[in-house]
Amino acid sequence: MASQVFRLLLLLHCFYFTFTTSSKHPLDPLSLDEIIQLKRIISKSNLSSSNLTFHQVDLDEPHKRQVLQWLRSSHPSLLPRRAKVIARTDGTTTHEITVDLEAKTITSDLIYTGHGYPPSTLDELEQAARLPLKDPMLSNSIKKRGLDLSKVFCEPFTVGWFGENTTKRLTRAVCFYGRDTNNILARPIEGISLLIDLDEMRVIEFSDRFVVPLPKAEGTSYESSSQSSSFASTICCVVKKKSGRGGGIEIEGHRIKWRNWDLHARLDARAGLVVSTASVFDEAKRLKRRVLYQGHVSEVFVPYMDPTSEWFYRAFMDLGEYGFGLPVNSLQEGIDCPGNAAYMDGVIVGAAGQPVRVSNVICVFERYGGDVAWRHTEIVTGKVIKVGRAEVSLVVRAVSTIGNYDYFLDWEFKESGSIKVGVAVTGVLEMKGVPYTNKDQIMEDLYGSFVAENTVGVHHDHFITYYLDLDIDGVSNSLIKAKMQTKRTTDVNTPRKSYWTVDREAAKTESDARIQLGPPVDLIVVNPNKKTKVGNDVGYHLIPAPPATSLLSDDDYPQIRAAYTRYQVWVTPYNRSERWAAGLYADRSRGDDGLAVWSNKNRGIENTDIVVWHTVGFHHIPCQEDFPVMPTLHGGFELRPFNFFDSNPLLKAKPPTYVSWANCSLTP
Amino acid sequence: MASQVFRLLLLLHCFYFTFTTSSKHPLDPLSLDEIIQLKRIISKSNLSSSNLTFHQVDLDEPHKRQVLQWLRSSHPSLLPRRAKVIARTDGTTTHEITVDLEAKTITSDLIYTGHGYPPSTLDELEQAARLPLKDPMLSNSIKKRGLDLSKVFCEPFTVGWFGENTTKRLTRAVCFYGRDTNNILARPIEGISLLIDLDEMRVIEFSDRFVVPLPKAEGTSYESSSQSSSFASTICCVVKKKSGRGGGIEIEGHRIKWRNWDLHARLDARAGLVVSTASVFDEAKRLKRRVLYQGHVSEVFVPYMDPTSEWFYRAFMDLGEYGFGLPVNSLQEGIDCPGNAAYMDGVIVGAAGQPVRVSNVICVFERYGGDVAWRHTEIVTGKVIKVGRAEVSLVVRAVSTIGNYDYFLDWEFKESGSIKVGVAVTGVLEMKGVPYTNKDQIMEDLYGSFVAENTVGVHHDHFITYYLDLDIDGVSNSLIKAKMQTKRTTDVNTPRKSYWTVDREAAKTESDARIQLGPPVDLIVVNPNKKTKVGNDVGYHLIPAPPATSLLSDDDYPQIRAAYTRYQVWVTPYNRSERWAAGLYADRSRGDDGLAVWSNKNRGIENTDIVVWHTVGFHHIPCQEDFPVMPTLHGGFELRPFNFFDSNPLLKAKPPTYVSWANCSLTP
Repeated sequence: MASQVFRLLLLLHCFYFTFTTSSKHPLDPLSLDEIIQLKRIISKSNLSSSNLTFHQVDLDEPHKRQVLQWLRSSHPSLLPRRAKVIARTDGTTTHEITVDLEAKTITSDLIYTGHGYPPSTLDELEQAARLPLKDPMLSNSIKKRGLDLSKVFCEPFTVGWFGENTTKRLTRAVCFYGRDTNNILARPIEGISLLIDLDEMRVIEFSDRFVVPLPKAEGTSYESSSQSSSFASTICCVVKKKSGRGGGIEIEGHRIKWRNWDLHARLDARAGLVVSTASVFDEAKRLKRRVLYQGHVSEVFVPYMDPTSEWFYRAFMDLGEYGFGLPVNSLQEGIDCPGNAAYMDGVIVGAAGQPVRVSNVICVFERYGGDVAWRHTEIVTGKVIKVGRAEVSLVVRAVSTIGNYDYFLDWEFKESGSIKVGVAVTGVLEMKGVPYTNKDQIMEDLYGSFVAENTVGVHHDHFITYYLDLDIDGVSNSLIKAKMQTKRTTDVNTPRKSYWTVDREAAKTESDARIQLGPPVDLIVVNPNKKTKVGNDVGYHLIPAPPATSLLSDDDYPQIRAAYTRYQVWVTPYNRSERWAAGLYADRSRGDDGLAVWSNKNRGIENTDIVVWHTVGFHHIPCQEDFPVMPTLHGGFELRPFNFFDSNPLLKAKPPTYVSWANCSLTP
Repeated sequence: MASQVFRLLLLLHCFYFTFTTSSKHPLDPLSLDEIIQLKRIISKSNLSSSNLTFHQVDLDEPHKRQVLQWLRSSHPSLLPRRAKVIARTDGTTTHEITVDLEAKTITSDLIYTGHGYPPSTLDELEQAARLPLKDPMLSNSIKKRGLDLSKVFCEPFTVGWFGENTTKRLTRAVCFYGRDTNNILARPIEGISLLIDLDEMRVIEFSDRFVVPLPKAEGTSYESSSQSSSFASTICCVVKKKSGRGGGIEIEGHRIKWRNWDLHARLDARAGLVVSTASVFDEAKRLKRRVLYQGHVSEVFVPYMDPTSEWFYRAFMDLGEYGFGLPVNSLQEGIDCPGNAAYMDGVIVGAAGQPVRVSNVICVFERYGGDVAWRHTEIVTGKVIKVGRAEVSLVVRAVSTIGNYDYFLDWEFKESGSIKVGVAVTGVLEMKGVPYTNKDQIMEDLYGSFVAENTVGVHHDHFITYYLDLDIDGVSNSLIKAKMQTKRTTDVNTPRKSYWTVDREAAKTESDARIQLGPPVDLIVVNPNKKTKVGNDVGYHLIPAPPATSLLSDDDYPQIRAAYTRYQVWVTPYNRSERWAAGLYADRSRGDDGLAVWSNKNRGIENTDIVVWHTVGFHHIPCQEDFPVMPTLHGGFELRPFNFFDSNPLLKAKPPTYVSWANCSLTP
């Protein structure tokens, strides 16, 4: 039934969105053909003589300067297409390879000798998941527990770094029991842990320390077949129509034009959804003005709070250790995105360098949630004026599932000039088996919440750190801290004793811009070289996520590696090589690369090309409602024009008009 | 064109919503007939011999105990209907009158002799607005400025209290120039101030201290006729269909049933929108369970940050000084509420006690903004499971315009059991005229932002304080502070050095529950007498608004009156008379009544009927985009089930199904 509707909707889509594939944007992701080409180039090189695995393949972006020039040009010629590959040879050596796809040459092949590793390939993870099942020690342990080995599934977890002098590429496998449920995470087999050498692909350590009763399968399933309800309901598709000039959404390749916005969206193997070259049309100036050169998630740090032998190492860096691109979802129409969404496909790259097309990895839709963009009633002048307009915005979305958690990454563009960046977390808790069936039996610290019989949802955090290369009306920007400060009145003529006023301070160097949220301060990124008509610096206000920073001690290993989670806002000068907050090689990293290290250089950040880093944090104390699958938790922040326009741009925008169908049938 | 669509939609509404008016709920607002009755009863009493003005007329709610009994009863008889009236006689005396509408008697008539006054009547405000225009001193001042008196409009503002020993009922009139614009607030005539005695209705003080150039009319209008745009666009109505049992929204009088929710909504003269007796159906227990006995805004404190003679007193208490009920909006379909909304009418009461029906003061609609309630992809077991469901929620909304600002009050109910309380602020800035036309001329502190030529948007705050009488699964509740605290590891067997764990502490007395947000703590209201299957206390988690408390000094008069804005969360034991955070008589109050005073009694709040008070705060540094009308600013908080259900209730709820119309015409 639903699928029939979706097929219909798919048909309808052709009417509502303009898709063009002709125009190439310099930030377009590598195409299927380009990846085939890339693989061919590498296989012809001397790299092919060794056992080569592709760990991360992405567009090597042209220099920002070139892209900006391309954008300004009226008849731009294509910029050179390059790919960057992180590969490993013979399970021993990490290569950073740059390939010129037009010249068909490898332009550089650097061997990385520092700490840390690229993410494992999906092949490796799959092998590592199967390896324990062939291990006689595991089968003994499973037998000892009276379980059926054919229903055991193991999952390899990244292991972090805890002060070891030598760090090999390792993974720890943890096993689950899949009998009578597909929600294997709900049936952890506690006590068993296997350490696997990924390069040699063998178990190097096995431990079985204790037995805990297995949580039961009953109530763990989340598939719809198991659902029953007294409440049925119907929602309708919102159908969109493209009308006239500028109406609807225009998609040309990866470029999206919608009302006053023009932007580019692509899938990146590491970052997942990347939004670039977002400009807003200023109706008053009749000018397209730049806002965001590029924005995406830079790292996701998820430390668990159980320090015991089987759990201590779980402090994941989802972007650097896994990547958001490979586990991207082919989006479910009507669930992940509404019925009126348009979609873009993506291409991911396997361990052997083979490209795989994944359909519908990015969706683009108009949101109309029933809110107003503005409104007012005025009655003072005698007559009643009642005006306003409904808020319709554009949402660009991708969803990545990293093991148990599903992350929605939303970029919402408003006609007011605002960009709302949303992250939504759902999926399945990481659960721990315990011997208890009732809270009153528990006398110890379980490092989590008791969410079901024999089941603890372990305390953890999510720190989603964004890379925001803002270019407010040009490249040279500054961060202004507009601090609200209480002043005592000095004038005897006023009975008021206090008020707050704003002390504005431009952050001069990186250390001025490490900010813990809490005290009242508005953070505004301005272009000090561009003024409004009345002389204000043009700017954008960062309305941040609620305060939440890491609570780990500074000397704790996970915190050393994710030192940037100590502050929620950082600013660095733009540097092409500074992109990943936990460093490029996050797997087994030691904290010697990344945002906290770069910021220590304390470089100048005033009136220059700057990047703002902002972390959306959640401290997650689980509850029973998070079991067996978690209701979505929403977070995010807003980039809101602040003296960017000379006045409210919504007044220049035509309000949306309603369309109704007289012949709407009321029976589905 | 649009109106035609709306007429059509109105027709359609009959199909989508069930409206019944037969059943009476004890918290239903006073009906038109009841107010006529009320007026008749009072006019027959000895009160009628004096010059009587009605300042606030509302339902006198039956005792909570009675209402709960009524709710439990299967064939409830109507509870006695009573009204409470705050009236003034002869411009000298404030009366609190209770009227029994069935016995047709005044059951009590108390004379209030404390500090503070009820809100002025609309009649008084209108008279006070006109009074200056007849004043020769004002006409002199207007002439002196070369302005046309017939285009001058004055607005009376409440004056607060600044230590005076005697406080009369006063208002300060400020004047604006309405030539060539309907946005009079954008053309303040600075320097002039008139103090008016409201009871005597005469100007008692006139001052004209200085002349400032009048901001120009150009660019101040926000009426749609002035709009032009390159971008046209079309949005479609979302049409809903009521299907089968429980589908759609059922409205019986003021009672709303939607999916698993059952609640009551009404308009109150003081609070505006009041939501009561909200219960959620627990599919697993097959039981309706209580969540919120009553919730509404308790006070809105808006202090401006200009201490000079003409501005110092502007620190408004919108609820207590004006009320959210009288200035409620008749909602604009398609703007204030979406096309699929159902509406309730309201009745307001004039100064003479006459009832006035206002249509469409509350709207109720299903929201579908394209988000998910939950989702997950699982691939470990060999096959790919990809599931989830779209989030559809119920929104109950009213919009009140207090002078320049429009407040959207939203109560959003989710099938997950969450209640999201939203407040959205839009409208027009309170602006001040200044001599400057460009920022570079300004050397002084303007106490605000330069938003247009000759125009400053004065710095201010909005503190919207909610009254939340939670009854989590029963009356006796406690507040748990679940503090996340960093611990050092002591076990030598773990390489982890730190983790956070949760120290749970029940707030025993009121002083334990005055909370400034910032440090990591989850606030959970539990019913310690009700356990989940596995033994957790059932509860709801308050996910608060971002931190924002008043920055005024404690000894400053506005802060003395709004002392409760020092903390964002308070808990008090339920007390029928403690409802208004700034006290019942907020106009010219002295801070001797209200939340901060009650809380000082430091009563017990553990395992008893408690009320949570939570403030949503905005520090508002205006910007040019807020001129001439402000894009909506959103705030709010969430009440999210926390061990209330035994597991995620969404899995028991049937997912919404899409409806599409094959014969949809694509031309409007």
